[in-house]
Amino acid sequence: MRAINFGAGPGALPRSVLERAREQLLETEGFAVRGRGLPVLEWSHRSEAYLRVHEGVRSRLRRLCGLDEEWEVLLLQGGASVHFAQVPLNLARAAWPGRYVLTGVWARKALEEARRLGRGNALASGEDTGFTRLPDEVSVRRALAEAGPTAYVHLTTNNTIHGTQWPEVPDLPGSAVVADASSDLLSRPFPRDRVSFVYAGAQKNLGPAGLGIVLARRELLERAAADVPAIWRYADHAARGSLLHTPPTFVVWMVGEVLSWLEGEGGPIALAARNERKAARIYEVLDGSPFWQPTAHPAHRSRMNVVFRLADPALEPEVVREAAEQGFVGLAGHRAVGGLRASLYNAISEQEAAALAAFLADFERRRG
Amino acid sequence: MRAINFGAGPGALPRSVLERAREQLLETEGFAVRGRGLPVLEWSHRSEAYLRVHEGVRSRLRRLCGLDEEWEVLLLQGGASVHFAQVPLNLARAAWPGRYVLTGVWARKALEEARRLGRGNALASGEDTGFTRLPDEVSVRRALAEAGPTAYVHLTTNNTIHGTQWPEVPDLPGSAVVADASSDLLSRPFPRDRVSFVYAGAQKNLGPAGLGIVLARRELLERAAADVPAIWRYADHAARGSLLHTPPTFVVWMVGEVLSWLEGEGGPIALAARNERKAARIYEVLDGSPFWQPTAHPAHRSRMNVVFRLADPALEPEVVREAAEQGFVGLAGHRAVGGLRASLYNAISEQEAAALAAFLADFERRRG
Repeated sequence: MRAINFGAGPGALPRSVLERAREQLLETEGFAVRGRGLPVLEWSHRSEAYLRVHEGVRSRLRRLCGLDEEWEVLLLQGGASVHFAQVPLNLARAAWPGRYVLTGVWARKALEEARRLGRGNALASGEDTGFTRLPDEVSVRRALAEAGPTAYVHLTTNNTIHGTQWPEVPDLPGSAVVADASSDLLSRPFPRDRVSFVYAGAQKNLGPAGLGIVLARRELLERAAADVPAIWRYADHAARGSLLHTPPTFVVWMVGEVLSWLEGEGGPIALAARNERKAARIYEVLDGSPFWQPTAHPAHRSRMNVVFRLADPALEPEVVREAAEQGFVGLAGHRAVGGLRASLYNAISEQEAAALAAFLADFERRRG
Repeated sequence: MRAINFGAGPGALPRSVLERAREQLLETEGFAVRGRGLPVLEWSHRSEAYLRVHEGVRSRLRRLCGLDEEWEVLLLQGGASVHFAQVPLNLARAAWPGRYVLTGVWARKALEEARRLGRGNALASGEDTGFTRLPDEVSVRRALAEAGPTAYVHLTTNNTIHGTQWPEVPDLPGSAVVADASSDLLSRPFPRDRVSFVYAGAQKNLGPAGLGIVLARRELLERAAADVPAIWRYADHAARGSLLHTPPTFVVWMVGEVLSWLEGEGGPIALAARNERKAARIYEVLDGSPFWQPTAHPAHRSRMNVVFRLADPALEPEVVREAAEQGFVGLAGHRAVGGLRASLYNAISEQEAAALAAFLADFERRRG
């Protein structure tokens, strides 16, 4: 049986991309010619074949996000967590810290790393609501006006664990906004005019685990002090075209295939509309009865991760188990909060989201 | 045509591993059951199926290297270059620096990163021989006796660019030896009694690009200062079983398959003998005529990377081109030194090495 991956990450991959990956794993004609008879997994990162893939990923990202030459596109190893440390190391100073909007576990982890370096402070927090709401934009702006020197404002665009998402990135004129967009980059149009530096792990909407993507205004990359090792300096990676060290070649190739699929599907505008419809299908079931208890405030609900509980928590493991038996995999909530979570990344189709909604409705009929 | 990958990395992978990777890319029965119907590329890093793979890689490494409980095994993203910075950040201080044995480009890069942090000095160098020889063990020991406080001695066990390799890791009693073994880890028995901390990128003998492996005595991992971010602290990765952040799941799976293949082939003792024979085949041709000019001093020759020139350098691109036409891919030397290089990592069979030797002999007959 083919299952559907509703897990929070590593996420679902488009079926056509998996098929193409399979084709290239042993030498088949097209790949053989380009890679001189070697499967992608063995391609040299200095080979013409690989460099075409590498540059293809960078230029596709640029195109899909509408970035001009003021922006740099970096492909780096380590996912988003590396940037929790690398961002303050490069962009902030003790007397000029990053200021963090806390909207959940991941934002808090980002702040922790900045604090270890003595370069980060909290700006606003949704913790008093159990992270079911985002701080409101006005209070963020007010806090920022009262804060001292600020290197950047850091926020998480979508919170996988708590199931919240900024409907729009807050408008903070005069501040460089650094955004962790690990779980919604390219699930909707890129908020180019409201952000200066965006990073994301690939393993939600963009490919398998093992790659971090950075999209940043060039002027921000030059801030690092002289005692920062080259491997952690964004400017050095930029100067070397993200080939400062051997890239994770196969993962980059996979991301290239996913981006190509994404373009074929109509790009982020089309995907955003589809993702809206997918999430609406699930929330509709959850809002239909007190049997279900979606946890996020309706105005701050995520289209990527639908987080919910049952009025009777004892039934939650039943949902997970029955769903898995029917091929809906990965519905358990994050260990930090429990409950249930349906992740609806780009590669989940409307039909698949509808099938999950039908399963939930059916579960309620049988057990409610 | 199926080609043979003699490139310096990403290196050749065992055919049987590529075949198994192909099997699992779409849901096939065994994988479906273990991964609940999802291909490895979509497995959650928290799933039972993945955790079995992850722990399998760690315990296989432990077994293949003969490591007891005093040793920690870490799986980290970023290859070896990350450790050029991470090692001095964790293990050294300004007043207690790492001391570097310079045997080529990679050792120099490692020292550069340590220097940026103000925590590294050169101890000995083979630069005066153009890195064709390694510094001799006696002079390394003498330099060490004269040096001040020393956090560790750093060396590169095999030098891919210059084609040299320590026949044995130098015996430096009383010093913690940190070794970059990126290009020969598990190509021969692990020198457990002479090293304290070994790191390696996976993409030579162990799998595809995208993973770094650290094998270290536990007591060394605890040295990091409080201002080091968690993501760069070895101790934090150890405490979390190398699951501090999402691992590159597919690459780890591939490494597991390669290690399993390696065990089936008889492990590092058997591989070392085979690698010795493979290299001997090539050096035999190169030593047979002044047409060829192997560059490394015979006593320091690498079994992994055979580096050579032609008496007539104009013929070098001809060798690369003709070889590629016959399916021997990746023979160009590193940009830093030019010439030719045949990399003979574990997955290259004796037959394949013999075929390359025959090609070279034939080339000489025709063009010599």
